[in-house]
Amino acid sequence: MREISGLRVNEARLREDFEALAEIGATASGGISRVALSYTDLVARAWFANRLDDIGVPVIDDEAGNLSGVLSADRSPAPTLVIGGHMDSVPNGGRYDSSVGIIAGLECLRVIQEAGIRLPVNLELVNFTDQAGTWHAMFGSKCFAGKFERFDANERLDTNEMSAFRAALTRAGLKPSEVHLAARDPQTLAGFLELHIEQGGRLAQAGDQIGVVTGIIGRSTYDVMFQGEAGHSGTTPPGKRRDALLGAADFITKAHEMIRQLDNGSIFNCGNITVEPGAFNVIPRTAHLTTECRHPDEATLSQLEADLEALARHCAHRHQLTVTVRRRIHMPAVSMSPQAIIAIERALHTVGVSRHSRLISFAGHHAQLLSPLVPAGMIFVPSVDGISHNPKEFTEWQDVVAGANALLHSVLNMAGVGAG
Amino acid sequence: MREISGLRVNEARLREDFEALAEIGATASGGISRVALSYTDLVARAWFANRLDDIGVPVIDDEAGNLSGVLSADRSPAPTLVIGGHMDSVPNGGRYDSSVGIIAGLECLRVIQEAGIRLPVNLELVNFTDQAGTWHAMFGSKCFAGKFERFDANERLDTNEMSAFRAALTRAGLKPSEVHLAARDPQTLAGFLELHIEQGGRLAQAGDQIGVVTGIIGRSTYDVMFQGEAGHSGTTPPGKRRDALLGAADFITKAHEMIRQLDNGSIFNCGNITVEPGAFNVIPRTAHLTTECRHPDEATLSQLEADLEALARHCAHRHQLTVTVRRRIHMPAVSMSPQAIIAIERALHTVGVSRHSRLISFAGHHAQLLSPLVPAGMIFVPSVDGISHNPKEFTEWQDVVAGANALLHSVLNMAGVGAG
Repeated sequence: MREISGLRVNEARLREDFEALAEIGATASGGISRVALSYTDLVARAWFANRLDDIGVPVIDDEAGNLSGVLSADRSPAPTLVIGGHMDSVPNGGRYDSSVGIIAGLECLRVIQEAGIRLPVNLELVNFTDQAGTWHAMFGSKCFAGKFERFDANERLDTNEMSAFRAALTRAGLKPSEVHLAARDPQTLAGFLELHIEQGGRLAQAGDQIGVVTGIIGRSTYDVMFQGEAGHSGTTPPGKRRDALLGAADFITKAHEMIRQLDNGSIFNCGNITVEPGAFNVIPRTAHLTTECRHPDEATLSQLEADLEALARHCAHRHQLTVTVRRRIHMPAVSMSPQAIIAIERALHTVGVSRHSRLISFAGHHAQLLSPLVPAGMIFVPSVDGISHNPKEFTEWQDVVAGANALLHSVLNMAGVGAG
Repeated sequence: MREISGLRVNEARLREDFEALAEIGATASGGISRVALSYTDLVARAWFANRLDDIGVPVIDDEAGNLSGVLSADRSPAPTLVIGGHMDSVPNGGRYDSSVGIIAGLECLRVIQEAGIRLPVNLELVNFTDQAGTWHAMFGSKCFAGKFERFDANERLDTNEMSAFRAALTRAGLKPSEVHLAARDPQTLAGFLELHIEQGGRLAQAGDQIGVVTGIIGRSTYDVMFQGEAGHSGTTPPGKRRDALLGAADFITKAHEMIRQLDNGSIFNCGNITVEPGAFNVIPRTAHLTTECRHPDEATLSQLEADLEALARHCAHRHQLTVTVRRRIHMPAVSMSPQAIIAIERALHTVGVSRHSRLISFAGHHAQLLSPLVPAGMIFVPSVDGISHNPKEFTEWQDVVAGANALLHSVLNMAGVGAG
């Protein structure tokens, strides 16, 4: 297997792709604006389809706008090993978040093809729709995994959001009524791998070149509405004040204190609050909070959610308020497959990366949807200073190359033909 | 003095005026919309001027839109005893807040005139502009008392507010550049009296028919801005989170707790809060609070303000934030004059009101501006259920009559010709 272990991506070609992709939707500040289904996102897809055409592999457009190229297996039928990626970005985001997985995946297809290797699995590189959440976070992979309910059954899409999302889908040539048809049969899939930037500062701080993701943090978002009674701030006696903002403030401080005391990796954020009627001399009648909580372990996350809801009810009761707690989004905590973790670590040995570590992802990724269905793994490369979703997002080029080579050999290992 | 002590207002005429005034700006829900300087407010002024004309007293329009009728003294020069009132309301307010002082004052002028009594002072009944604060709370009495800075020196009136206020003044025939000319020389004033509804529930709860106001609560409003740093809610480590909303929530809960522990009649309200950038998964960068505090004693209010500012700085420091604290409005706490309090209590004896008590006003009134200049007093009649600024605002008619008779004899006592 001497020749397999010696395979490497073509650095010059990788760089050329990186630079070409970075020009599509480039912003004056050196960043990228390619929000999902926008004109620039569609141009990036066309660029991607052309690169797939260049190497003569079939290009697939699915009902959710996911765009793939497939390197066929040496047999038929064969299961499909998926390499994930995305080219969409947040507004004025960085050049690495929205490209590294795709350009490295392209190199994997090319290098394996050029080496004349026929895999026992189909190798499919997928650009998933709307990773960043412009319309619906992980929309493409959710549909791919069969986890997206039909639009009319999807509570999160209220009328305003839905009308704009529908327009965006239609502009991209997609039928909203058909997006759920993108669901794949898990029986046809062999595994999932993705290369991504860390978006945090742990690898850089530890001096590691590669991170092997062991799990992705679970996340739930909530609407919490405290309701009291408006009143004249001067003449309402203390016992009759039912101040919704006071109850909300009590909840926010106690929730953060609870997280601190738990000291178990739980994360809580209250990102916004809206008060009615909102005059300086009127006791607040309602306080509407937008919150989220995260934990890498699904059981602990569930307990955390229950504890936070109980805390909200306690604070409401304490201040003579009512409260409604409504979960908006739930992305379960998942573990990466041991098989994938070992495949990646063997690949790191093969390509000579000695500085690597295992870590949890604190951000959401497509693997969160795929891992319940197939063995899934993720490779992180360091983000300098942990900066992401920002034009200043940066990863050392040799780390991108190391990540691409790690992905290549992880693919070969997962396909059963690797050197590891 | 038998005939003086027997003087009473004409109940039928008082009722007729009440009903007539309640038709101007009447709302479908049984309330009143006569916001200051609006068309309905100007119609009410014309009605008031006609009533003054009816009894043949001079009508004065001053530079701030205050409208008066004067019953002349038996000598010249003579000081002026002022009866205060207002006909402006909050939007869809009640019929009593915006009329009782005026209709009772009209009866005072008429009854004294009809009895052929010549007072040693001029008796001036003033309808003050914008008591409710549509444009600037206590605008008319502030100008009257010489406490309103010229427009270009008044920090509170930013460009937007000022342009609308100027338009409203102009529509009412007033020149914004001249409003400060309404200031009276305190040497020409003998005292100030006003009848008003309580707007709280203390008198009704105690079963009292009349309240003798001993002081008016002081009030300051503040903008408090906490500033931290925005960050990814998932990937920012605990030690690096600078959450402006957490600091603000800590301040709100601790401020209310401080008020509770002080247990000295201090009032605090945080009526609104605005968070930037306001996304569920972004740590809040800024939290902007609109707060106010009140206390009946000016020295205690000053200490309370200092304590609240220190608390804001403590909370900012504790959460690695910065904070700016800016006072917007200050209405000092004032005491009513002992002379006026005694004049009112003797009047209550004269008219046979046995159920009365002394109390502090938790809302602002014109007497707050006048009391530093002249002996000032206020008479409260009960608000059923403490409801005010609401179409449901209600005072028993016999209480309104008792209040008007109390005002009549308080005026006579203050003028030195009373039976008390």
